[in-house]
Amino acid sequence: MATDLLVCDVTPRDGLQLLPEAWSVVERVALIDRLSSAGVRRVEAVSFVNPARVPQMADAEAVLQAIARPAGLEVAGLVMNARGVERALATELDEIRFVIVASETFSQRNQGAGIDATMRAFTDSAARIRQAGRRCTAVIAVAFGCPFEGEIDPANVAALVEASVHAGADEVLLADTIGVAVPMQVLGLARRISPHLKGRRWGLHLHNTRNTGYANALFGLVAGASVLDAATGGLGGCPFAPRATGNIATEDLVWMLKREQHDTGIDLAALTDLSQELRARVPAAHTGQVARAGLFPEGIAPDGVAA
Amino acid sequence: MATDLLVCDVTPRDGLQLLPEAWSVVERVALIDRLSSAGVRRVEAVSFVNPARVPQMADAEAVLQAIARPAGLEVAGLVMNARGVERALATELDEIRFVIVASETFSQRNQGAGIDATMRAFTDSAARIRQAGRRCTAVIAVAFGCPFEGEIDPANVAALVEASVHAGADEVLLADTIGVAVPMQVLGLARRISPHLKGRRWGLHLHNTRNTGYANALFGLVAGASVLDAATGGLGGCPFAPRATGNIATEDLVWMLKREQHDTGIDLAALTDLSQELRARVPAAHTGQVARAGLFPEGIAPDGVAA
Repeated sequence: MATDLLVCDVTPRDGLQLLPEAWSVVERVALIDRLSSAGVRRVEAVSFVNPARVPQMADAEAVLQAIARPAGLEVAGLVMNARGVERALATELDEIRFVIVASETFSQRNQGAGIDATMRAFTDSAARIRQAGRRCTAVIAVAFGCPFEGEIDPANVAALVEASVHAGADEVLLADTIGVAVPMQVLGLARRISPHLKGRRWGLHLHNTRNTGYANALFGLVAGASVLDAATGGLGGCPFAPRATGNIATEDLVWMLKREQHDTGIDLAALTDLSQELRARVPAAHTGQVARAGLFPEGIAPDGVAA
Repeated sequence: MATDLLVCDVTPRDGLQLLPEAWSVVERVALIDRLSSAGVRRVEAVSFVNPARVPQMADAEAVLQAIARPAGLEVAGLVMNARGVERALATELDEIRFVIVASETFSQRNQGAGIDATMRAFTDSAARIRQAGRRCTAVIAVAFGCPFEGEIDPANVAALVEASVHAGADEVLLADTIGVAVPMQVLGLARRISPHLKGRRWGLHLHNTRNTGYANALFGLVAGASVLDAATGGLGGCPFAPRATGNIATEDLVWMLKREQHDTGIDLAALTDLSQELRARVPAAHTGQVARAGLFPEGIAPDGVAA
């Protein structure tokens, strides 16, 4: 298992972007500050998209200006095109995550541009991002399956990873956008991308839509992934898969990793408190289990009813 | 991965035993027949317990007399003591699963007898079960953690496995009764019990209470488990862990295994139909995801909304 495992909490972006009720800047800032206070070391805080399309993500700049920036916290933001990169570079973001979609149809639907155009934009942007001293991460979306095209050829995903790294990506994330991945695919893709990474860090953005997210995470770690995205409470989803449930839950992942003898440095009690607040606020979006079931072995009691 | 993997559906026992409303014999028989029609090859159909304590499990004999017995279907029943064994032997059950609890406290609470007394009863029963031509399975409950005692020493679990096999067990199941196991524990226990099994088959009964069930299942397969219990719709739970959610869902497990290139012979469409009916009937107990999210890559559509 990777000794430098990093859990990146994406609640402020993936978790909030599909909620029917948009959170205010103040609330989003408070959420991010709660996460960093709980010891989360990387947060995907914003997405630079057209606020007319995704109003929940409006005012990214205002959010970034107001959040606390404790030492050790890395703040990341999502972009899909050159315009997003320009906006991102005008802020104090540490990391810019550029989405490259492995399916032509999904690429057109998600960001109004095909794969080739997106790769050109990424290639143009990567050097600028790195010159500005920020981390440039390539996020390969629908890497494990697409709601429009079905199966995605892992050779295509590997080619996108190769091209991204060649263009300047510092890190690569494989995203199971609609939660269809199984561990065999994770292992297979890990093997295929390995020669192209040339030692760069890679990770997984996993959804638990069909209950495979946590298995994918652990097999991913075995195969060398060292970044795992997750959302507190298991919030999140995909606009093109309306019945898709959320990301793997940060607190469920952290509890499992802790029990697997891996300390992420994240305060589970603080995270679970936050999860329970999220559950009260947006119960339909909450999919985490540990917040309900308890942090075994904490809470065991003579009558079996955990505190 | 095991080539002779068997999925055992426990909906009629673990799935139904905690439902507030007891199902009738007719309904239970219909459920079991639905499962066998869907290609499930082993069903845990009944539990021989005091009907005053667990009214949902009353009339086990009547259920067994009425179910269809297609070729290739193995029918199992759960027992906790010699009385249960006698009742079971009077039926046409193929397999008798005898519960031995790895925690003294849980053992007393669950079956009114300590571990030593239970092992003596098992030892007395095993020979009779095998002489009657039935499979004798030892189920080690709370093998990965107990709601009363907390952590369970894997050495104790291994000792129970050794004693069970010595007494005549044909198969061994390790049960994560309250859903606290993580894959590292599964791998560790698998290693410890291996020398005691002397080639006998072993398996896992997993709950997804903290979202670890499917990861445990796959790592279990890697480590040599060849029987996996699951309940359609992810029903089930534990009376001593009131917030414990259910078993891993049979259809979610089968979908994942199929995508991992392992054909269980189970008709996913039929199972998913049943799961959706269960969800309509007992929505609070339903935890399966695939019945909601769809059987990717089936159902993909140009507009992304699966059929």
